[in-house]
Amino acid sequence: MTETEFIPQTIALIGGTGNLGPGLALRWAMAGHMVFIGSRTSDKAEEVAAELNDTLGDSRIVGLDNASAVQRADICVLTVVQSAHDPAIESLKEELQGKILIDATARTSFPDLTPPAPPSAARTAQNILGEGVRVTAAFQNVAASALKKNLGEELNSDVIVCADDLDAAQIVISLSKDAGMQAYFAGDLDKAIVVEGFTSLVISMNKFYKVHAGTIKVAGIPKSKT
Amino acid sequence: MTETEFIPQTIALIGGTGNLGPGLALRWAMAGHMVFIGSRTSDKAEEVAAELNDTLGDSRIVGLDNASAVQRADICVLTVVQSAHDPAIESLKEELQGKILIDATARTSFPDLTPPAPPSAARTAQNILGEGVRVTAAFQNVAASALKKNLGEELNSDVIVCADDLDAAQIVISLSKDAGMQAYFAGDLDKAIVVEGFTSLVISMNKFYKVHAGTIKVAGIPKSKT
Repeated sequence: MTETEFIPQTIALIGGTGNLGPGLALRWAMAGHMVFIGSRTSDKAEEVAAELNDTLGDSRIVGLDNASAVQRADICVLTVVQSAHDPAIESLKEELQGKILIDATARTSFPDLTPPAPPSAARTAQNILGEGVRVTAAFQNVAASALKKNLGEELNSDVIVCADDLDAAQIVISLSKDAGMQAYFAGDLDKAIVVEGFTSLVISMNKFYKVHAGTIKVAGIPKSKT
Repeated sequence: MTETEFIPQTIALIGGTGNLGPGLALRWAMAGHMVFIGSRTSDKAEEVAAELNDTLGDSRIVGLDNASAVQRADICVLTVVQSAHDPAIESLKEELQGKILIDATARTSFPDLTPPAPPSAARTAQNILGEGVRVTAAFQNVAASALKKNLGEELNSDVIVCADDLDAAQIVISLSKDAGMQAYFAGDLDKAIVVEGFTSLVISMNKFYKVHAGTIKVAGIPKSKT
């Protein structure tokens, strides 16, 4: 893919007060995107947004309840825990129509770390939401703590993007780069099941090798091709 | 894990005249292991063994039918295509008792590259073989062509080892290093389903980016820990 010019996006982080949301919000706001942090109640979202704006010295990040955040955005990122995945999508089905949904749900059963069985979380999301929403899968394996640090720097973390819609995938690849991560398109939403399963491997390796920063990366694809 | 001294092993490559077998055979023979190439008929196996011995300038690699190869080895590596996986294991069930089986089967359905559903190929192998065989999963995503080249050099390819038996896993990790690959233990045989699914992602990325050498690697675990 060729380098594209920067296009500012409106982005809602559903469940954005959790682990993954704040780091993505900071990096995307810094890159020039408009970011809405969503939460079940607007109070919590406003509080987190204020903290993040403090970090940025800016007021670009806005806290809202999830439905209001989704309504204001073209691109919505689902960053909730596995158990909240289906209920969150069902409750926002109307608001999500016409938008791109990035499903960042990693699926790992605790404590035995069994990898997930098909369908992928992202395929389930697409099935619930119908054709009016372009679902993509990405960001399942980003280390949330690393995202919040060294904001201007690249992360030692790759994003593997799965989508049925290639245009939506390209937008997600651009957003990954804006957040400091190399991103790769790897096929349709069914393939997300493999990426969703990376987590079970990574946690297992981290435990065994007594490290915290194990990750899975893509190699052998020159940057000039991406 | 600490560095262990070299222990020569007897290794059988079941279906070893195929894609993956010859490269592993060359590298393990060079490292000092005794290697038996197995095939459905001994003729084909002898032919391939002779070619490999020519390359090595040695006679360390022996071609045999699969059952005879397995009988002579402590460690057996299954390198057959997905469709031959269960029949091969069933036909060698008696000969494999008491040994370590390394299941290298990558599972990818063509042409749509659907990732596999549980149970993993390796778990299926363990279920068929029973407790008398220590099954491990490894080498599913090694580029066969790269294995056969630059024999003394390290490969740009990681081995992720899954096993219920940690001692067996350690042996496979040592064998991976002997073949020029960094290896990581990532949990029990159920987790192999994720590694078996890497292939669907890698083929999909290679197609999209028009490359041949895409791969998935482990990062963030210092070599000193492995």
